[in-house]
Amino acid sequence: MSTLSALTNHQVRLASRPVGLPTRDNWQHTAEPVAEPPEGGLVVQVLYLSIDPAMRGWMNEGKSYIAPVGIGEVMRAGGVGRVIASRHPQYQVGDHVSGALGVQEYASLAGDELRRAGLTRIDLRAGSLTQWLNVLGMPGMTAYFGLLDVGRPQPGETVVVSGAAGAVGQTVGQLAKIKGCRVVGIAGGRAKCEWAVQELGFDACLDYKSAPLKDELRRHCPDGVHVYFDNVGGEVLDTVLTRLARKARIVVCGAISQYNSAAVQGPKNYLSLLVNRARMEGMVVFDYADRYPEAVAELAGYLRDGRLKSREHVVEGGVQAFPEALLKLFSGENFGKLVLQVTAG
Amino acid sequence: MSTLSALTNHQVRLASRPVGLPTRDNWQHTAEPVAEPPEGGLVVQVLYLSIDPAMRGWMNEGKSYIAPVGIGEVMRAGGVGRVIASRHPQYQVGDHVSGALGVQEYASLAGDELRRAGLTRIDLRAGSLTQWLNVLGMPGMTAYFGLLDVGRPQPGETVVVSGAAGAVGQTVGQLAKIKGCRVVGIAGGRAKCEWAVQELGFDACLDYKSAPLKDELRRHCPDGVHVYFDNVGGEVLDTVLTRLARKARIVVCGAISQYNSAAVQGPKNYLSLLVNRARMEGMVVFDYADRYPEAVAELAGYLRDGRLKSREHVVEGGVQAFPEALLKLFSGENFGKLVLQVTAG
Repeated sequence: MSTLSALTNHQVRLASRPVGLPTRDNWQHTAEPVAEPPEGGLVVQVLYLSIDPAMRGWMNEGKSYIAPVGIGEVMRAGGVGRVIASRHPQYQVGDHVSGALGVQEYASLAGDELRRAGLTRIDLRAGSLTQWLNVLGMPGMTAYFGLLDVGRPQPGETVVVSGAAGAVGQTVGQLAKIKGCRVVGIAGGRAKCEWAVQELGFDACLDYKSAPLKDELRRHCPDGVHVYFDNVGGEVLDTVLTRLARKARIVVCGAISQYNSAAVQGPKNYLSLLVNRARMEGMVVFDYADRYPEAVAELAGYLRDGRLKSREHVVEGGVQAFPEALLKLFSGENFGKLVLQVTAG
Repeated sequence: MSTLSALTNHQVRLASRPVGLPTRDNWQHTAEPVAEPPEGGLVVQVLYLSIDPAMRGWMNEGKSYIAPVGIGEVMRAGGVGRVIASRHPQYQVGDHVSGALGVQEYASLAGDELRRAGLTRIDLRAGSLTQWLNVLGMPGMTAYFGLLDVGRPQPGETVVVSGAAGAVGQTVGQLAKIKGCRVVGIAGGRAKCEWAVQELGFDACLDYKSAPLKDELRRHCPDGVHVYFDNVGGEVLDTVLTRLARKARIVVCGAISQYNSAAVQGPKNYLSLLVNRARMEGMVVFDYADRYPEAVAELAGYLRDGRLKSREHVVEGGVQAFPEALLKLFSGENFGKLVLQVTAG
């Protein structure tokens, strides 16, 4: 362990709260030595970080479903890494773990911080490091519980998912297919749509950038939309509202089109809920933490037998590249689950 | 029955579709003789008509949860009346009935029209004629199933209802009190609010015209809002969204503030559903038709033992007064369930 003191931990901290899209000025790059772990604690070398739409919300003042990141604090981020020092009886040097490691190269966690960080040992036989940030991580958990517990699709029903090539959307659509549904994705750009249909087996994927979504939805959802899993909000949500089937369920998972807006665009067609006796329900994945193992087991099984695929968009460049990487989410530039490689190898 | 031919049936027909608030030009007043009923049919003399916010929707082109009223057709309206001629084995002259009688003085119904009109014999020992259009009629059924089946309030929870002095709201609030909830109404004007608290037993009633609703909600719902029964939409809905409790349920029953708008105002705070894992669900009372007897029995019991009160706002003047009466709903001028007296006595 005497080698730790030779290591430098580069970090990205929140310097100020953004208005609209985050800029370079909102971040502060710092470096500090890596401390020895206290009794019961450990040090994790961060390998990959998850870049998530929710990060934008954590940068705002005011409590949402989770406290905001404080000014001057290391930016919150889920990640996977390797234990390089341990004074905790259940973790060995070399173990791979996932948890809220933060935008930094080394996470030094005291014993009482492990639970808060949601630290879990991960098994690389079930999935790769980046899959543990995608289908076996938060996005996969969100897809699993949001679709199955909130959306409750029945075989033969039509499931529509926006952000179809994104982290949550890709798993939502494939899982709905596995459960016997007709699946129509919505994504931005021909490449993402072709991938969803040809690689993931979606019945259709609509490119909202190229054709009027309303007409395309009518054509591809002749019986209406039974479950809509919404990752984007805004105009797309409003359009899907016009095509609901009776007793439809809308899972409100996110609204990436709105996160950088000063004023959120409310769904002006919400009265379609009334006409169609439909429901719109929000979900926060952390509520299902007790049941993650059940979801991981099922999803890992589908990965193993080839029924479930995943795609990650890896940005290289270490923590220094974090500010730029985050912006890719909001431009829709990422194709697949966006992750940042922090340490090569 | 030979006297029928001496009677004249004054009617109000839809002449054109309104843009915004309905005007006199949207209506046509007609008169025709009353026809003898065919075998299996009957003639009902209309006594009172229900004036409902939903009427505005029926005037629009395009199918909602029910087909629009056609141009030139007698305006659709629920009502109560007395059978004055019957060739139907189950109805006697003198029976009181409720159903979709239309804005006219006499409804001549062929046998196959009875079911479509939802014709039901009513018992004036359970409630007065106007109560059969209110607490024992569609508004009462809407309150009962919307609150209990969709809102599912638990004892001790806080239920907020807008349009608190209106037809549906008055019963929602009282029923929630009976079920052991804390009840906060929202209404326009001091008189309505005082009535809701002093006569109906609401814990509070907020006058949205006189004080900032957000502050008042915070004060009167310290634990947040568990069930919001929304009759109004617009700004009120948006404000209540900011005060949701975890796992809150919003019952979307109507949006009277929006029915005359060219563009509906979407709830810009709908992401509160996500943060609070809350749900927003629409309901249409007709779906519960099989269960009306259960609701009527329960509500009539509460009326009888004095735990449930009702207030109707009766407009006189016969069918000629219908166009003006309808406007009172949108100005909020009515105080209680709005009904039109068609025939004196």
